[in-house]
Amino acid sequence: MTNASRITHHGILYGVGVGPGDPELLTLKAVRALKAADVIAIPKSKEESDSIAISIVKGIVDLSNKETVELIFPMTKDKEILRRARGDAAAAIADRLKAGKNVACITLGDPMFYSTFSYLVPLVREKLPKAEIEIIPGISSVMASAAAAVIPLAEADERLAVIPATYETEKLRNVLNDFDTIVLMKVNKIFDKVLSLLSESGLKNRAVFVERCGGDKERVVRNLESLRGERLDYLSMVIVKK
Amino acid sequence: MTNASRITHHGILYGVGVGPGDPELLTLKAVRALKAADVIAIPKSKEESDSIAISIVKGIVDLSNKETVELIFPMTKDKEILRRARGDAAAAIADRLKAGKNVACITLGDPMFYSTFSYLVPLVREKLPKAEIEIIPGISSVMASAAAAVIPLAEADERLAVIPATYETEKLRNVLNDFDTIVLMKVNKIFDKVLSLLSESGLKNRAVFVERCGGDKERVVRNLESLRGERLDYLSMVIVKK
Repeated sequence: MTNASRITHHGILYGVGVGPGDPELLTLKAVRALKAADVIAIPKSKEESDSIAISIVKGIVDLSNKETVELIFPMTKDKEILRRARGDAAAAIADRLKAGKNVACITLGDPMFYSTFSYLVPLVREKLPKAEIEIIPGISSVMASAAAAVIPLAEADERLAVIPATYETEKLRNVLNDFDTIVLMKVNKIFDKVLSLLSESGLKNRAVFVERCGGDKERVVRNLESLRGERLDYLSMVIVKK
Repeated sequence: MTNASRITHHGILYGVGVGPGDPELLTLKAVRALKAADVIAIPKSKEESDSIAISIVKGIVDLSNKETVELIFPMTKDKEILRRARGDAAAAIADRLKAGKNVACITLGDPMFYSTFSYLVPLVREKLPKAEIEIIPGISSVMASAAAAVIPLAEADERLAVIPATYETEKLRNVLNDFDTIVLMKVNKIFDKVLSLLSESGLKNRAVFVERCGGDKERVVRNLESLRGERLDYLSMVIVKK
């Protein structure tokens, strides 16, 4: 790319879903975008942790000739700290787009489903209103977990709810009552409470626990009671199929 | 494969999600399974219609040396006709597995999400209890539509509901009230009713219509009112994001 075109043409921002853990669950489109990108942006929850998303990508794409930029998101509920971290991340992306570079921002699973990337879209647009943004969907951990457990998420006229298990008990109870399939995300934090609720609703034997789906440490557990008291991975969910 | 191993080893059944329409949204794993399969099984809704799923696969995988088997599912609510069609389809698959052939049954979107494949799993297992079945998840039209419309399906502690728009009005109203994001499937059949309901709930401007996502005829329409009275494709949905 010549210097002149760098000045007049912004790069494109790709939000790339890399799937739940298995590098083979990358799409052809994701692989193409990652190979063509000048910059790989890697959202990370903490400075010290390894990004699972980048380890997936490394299995398929040679990163040696690319710039990689880590976007650090602290694990906090402090809104001011979050606001600043997101602003910094959006600025890091916008700077590279302005320089004419194509940026692929990778996301575990799908970019529009419980991802950090969706927060960045409006912030990048604020800084660079004409930014061209393309989202490349990825295999969500929900679909991958249903595949691993061989549980249909929805058939015919059924209704599916996806909710964080951290919801108040009464609301969880209502959703368990109203829907045909219920996916409980973030279940590790309050697994024993969820277990009691499922027991009480008579749904314990209709539930499957799936952890780290698609990765080396994948576990599918149908006897939920056997997990009581265990320390569970945060990449885990319970699928309840009535 | 020798005749002897044919007798002792059954083939493997792969349920392969081929994504919503763009051949590039196939995963690497789906491409590998399709290339390695002896038989491609193609569920079709009617004898005369073309399968969208197979047209996606043809863009990527050479089918000339493979057997293709069409599995015909009539568009009917007649349970006896459906039961027979599903039984025939499962038998067609089981026969090939018994002959030691690997069968890839293709599914538009994801095999565990509103697909015909999920009905076949228990029926194939009935005929061939030891059948090895592997599900390869696919990009769901829900994720692809959210990507096309750049609408986050869920962030942080949000709740997502996916329901057929054909539900009774009162139940639809409750779901629209209780969830942060609501995906209304099969919206083509009762679009004007949905439009009135969204209008009444003050959500019309928070909704996006997406049709044939990922295909050549993809449409993303944010002014839902402009669609009133129009004949819509059955591969369409409305995403409501509060």
